[in-house]
Amino acid sequence: MSRSSSLYLSTERFTALYHIRCTSAEVEARARDICIEQTVEFPETLITSTAIRDQIIGRVVAIEAIGEDRFEVGIAYPVETAGRELTQLINVLFGNISIQPSVRLVGFDLPESLRQHYRGPRFGRAGLRTLLDVHDRSLLCTAIKPMGLSPTELAELAYRLALGGIDLIKDDHGLSDQTFCPFDERVARCAEAVARANRETGKRCLYLPNVSAPATEVARRARLAKQAGAGGVLFCPGLCGLDAMRTLAEDDTFGLPILSHPAFQGSFCVHPDSGISHGVLYGQLNRLAGADATIFPSWGGRFAYTRDECLDLVDGTTREMGSIKPIFPVPAGGMRLDRVGELCRFYGRDCILLIGGDLHAQGPDLVASCRRFGELVREASNDLDGDRRRHPPAGAQR
Amino acid sequence: MSRSSSLYLSTERFTALYHIRCTSAEVEARARDICIEQTVEFPETLITSTAIRDQIIGRVVAIEAIGEDRFEVGIAYPVETAGRELTQLINVLFGNISIQPSVRLVGFDLPESLRQHYRGPRFGRAGLRTLLDVHDRSLLCTAIKPMGLSPTELAELAYRLALGGIDLIKDDHGLSDQTFCPFDERVARCAEAVARANRETGKRCLYLPNVSAPATEVARRARLAKQAGAGGVLFCPGLCGLDAMRTLAEDDTFGLPILSHPAFQGSFCVHPDSGISHGVLYGQLNRLAGADATIFPSWGGRFAYTRDECLDLVDGTTREMGSIKPIFPVPAGGMRLDRVGELCRFYGRDCILLIGGDLHAQGPDLVASCRRFGELVREASNDLDGDRRRHPPAGAQR
Repeated sequence: MSRSSSLYLSTERFTALYHIRCTSAEVEARARDICIEQTVEFPETLITSTAIRDQIIGRVVAIEAIGEDRFEVGIAYPVETAGRELTQLINVLFGNISIQPSVRLVGFDLPESLRQHYRGPRFGRAGLRTLLDVHDRSLLCTAIKPMGLSPTELAELAYRLALGGIDLIKDDHGLSDQTFCPFDERVARCAEAVARANRETGKRCLYLPNVSAPATEVARRARLAKQAGAGGVLFCPGLCGLDAMRTLAEDDTFGLPILSHPAFQGSFCVHPDSGISHGVLYGQLNRLAGADATIFPSWGGRFAYTRDECLDLVDGTTREMGSIKPIFPVPAGGMRLDRVGELCRFYGRDCILLIGGDLHAQGPDLVASCRRFGELVREASNDLDGDRRRHPPAGAQR
Repeated sequence: MSRSSSLYLSTERFTALYHIRCTSAEVEARARDICIEQTVEFPETLITSTAIRDQIIGRVVAIEAIGEDRFEVGIAYPVETAGRELTQLINVLFGNISIQPSVRLVGFDLPESLRQHYRGPRFGRAGLRTLLDVHDRSLLCTAIKPMGLSPTELAELAYRLALGGIDLIKDDHGLSDQTFCPFDERVARCAEAVARANRETGKRCLYLPNVSAPATEVARRARLAKQAGAGGVLFCPGLCGLDAMRTLAEDDTFGLPILSHPAFQGSFCVHPDSGISHGVLYGQLNRLAGADATIFPSWGGRFAYTRDECLDLVDGTTREMGSIKPIFPVPAGGMRLDRVGELCRFYGRDCILLIGGDLHAQGPDLVASCRRFGELVREASNDLDGDRRRHPPAGAQR
């Protein structure tokens, strides 16, 4: 068995980068095991076909020690193994080995022949700035919540947030289509409220309802959101599947920006020796699946990401991916107004700052709190300009 | 803000069980944080609406110490927060807190009012046994592989495997729709080969092609598989989304059994203090999403699950879920013929044994190796009967 008389693949390969925790005596065998597990998943000694051994199995292209019992391993897979499908590409990158406790996917690089199957973000950083006509500062984002408010109450909130100068107002990711807040009614009212505020301010605030939904329902909600006047959508690829987001992003009849939310994806990043790096999960995979911005829990908030993890994440939003555009990092998860300066210095101007509860903690005048948020961001962006003129940062042009 | 004049929810709640690692001084606050994070996601002190505080926020219903700095915490959420959607149910159970490093979802219990939105497995254990007309032993499963074989070669393999008495022959999960092995051609040839073998043996072997695919393509491939005569399908909910599997399972025009594969889901179980327990991930969630059998890497194979984790997983396949049927556990991941007796004793008769590569390692006569697999399973099942008569096991009726 395992003869394959008709296998003629191109010689082109895509590369995955893994961190492996093991001894130096083990690392070559571990790397080779991954090459097999992610392709043929079959005992190598039983594969008699030279074509399959040579053309299908992954190939170790680099092994480098990066710490005590830690190695960075590059593996090159034939482009044909990944088909023309995101689901299968992810399967080859990290399908079965997601089950292994000491392998972490930390990067991947696709040749143009494979990348061409993916359109990536429709807007990305530049497109979203053009849409909002904001070019010289970080963008302001907040959420309408808490769950339990009626569509009318949420719309009133959205109106005041837009009046205060917020650029992107998203549904809380816990708002779906509950009896106490039906999707259709909420979206119609909130979109109308934000449009009304925009007429008063002359600004282009976008309302982004949450269209995370059952598989057969995403397209309907997205269409309804667009018809109601929403300026974009919120989507949770962890709940709905990365390919469902890609489908939405590539749908020309939809054509609005997508803000990706990490619900149910956190377990991929929790353990430093396994899962997927922040740069790949929040950055590269979101870009390939068409998100224009990626929400994540920043260091210093309610969650436990470190500064280094956040930097890796930001790197993943701009990492070279050919025609796949860079996207906005959206630090969130308990961010506060008194940290805006610090956040802007850390993330630079090319980020979307998402502040939720703390806007409400400033006092009863929500419009004033939003304006204060905007002032702080403008001040911080100006300071950044000053700092840049004095100390041009390394890699600032990236 | 946060007044909600019109909120009148039922008093019904569903319960999630978490394991939390923290000190006893912290546990009440940690539990309360989860109640808030998973519902309103808003500073509690800023919620002025009594209705939202009373009706929307999760409620701690149990805290029990289960080890040093480890607690089991029960939280009851209003059924309305989960809507009528699997995506939103999972969001409430484990959306944001998937990002936290020391919280693990270990169980959930839905009242009938919420469960009624889910049909669960169409076949389950009993239905699959009826379909195969095998009632007195564990079922035999294998995969056609390695990737790189042509549709003709895979069909020849499938023919011999079916001739040897395998009950379920699945595609390797790495076979999708690659140029070297197009889905349509592979499925047509393999289904025909298995049907031919069935005519010769008089058996009812099922061929299950892999329909893990882009969001807009799953239904087409599933329909095509059915038209070609496939007896079921393989599906990777980690790659495609759990709700995509539910959609397929509940589609009456499809109506075939679904074998769930864990690709890209492993990170949920890797770290014992975070993520999702084996019983919930492989068992309860798969059942809710309509899988009839759940493949997992058993202890003693290529992967690192422990015996206790496998027992928890099996428990999740039968755990009380009202009308949601029990499903088959499918131990896999490097299982060998010489371990069949041990596996049958460990898992009991109600499992599907998946042996891949080792059938080929037995020598060139694949049909004979399959027959040997069948004999070993029948012997083990008979031994089990003998053991049972001598020592009726506790919980054997479950």
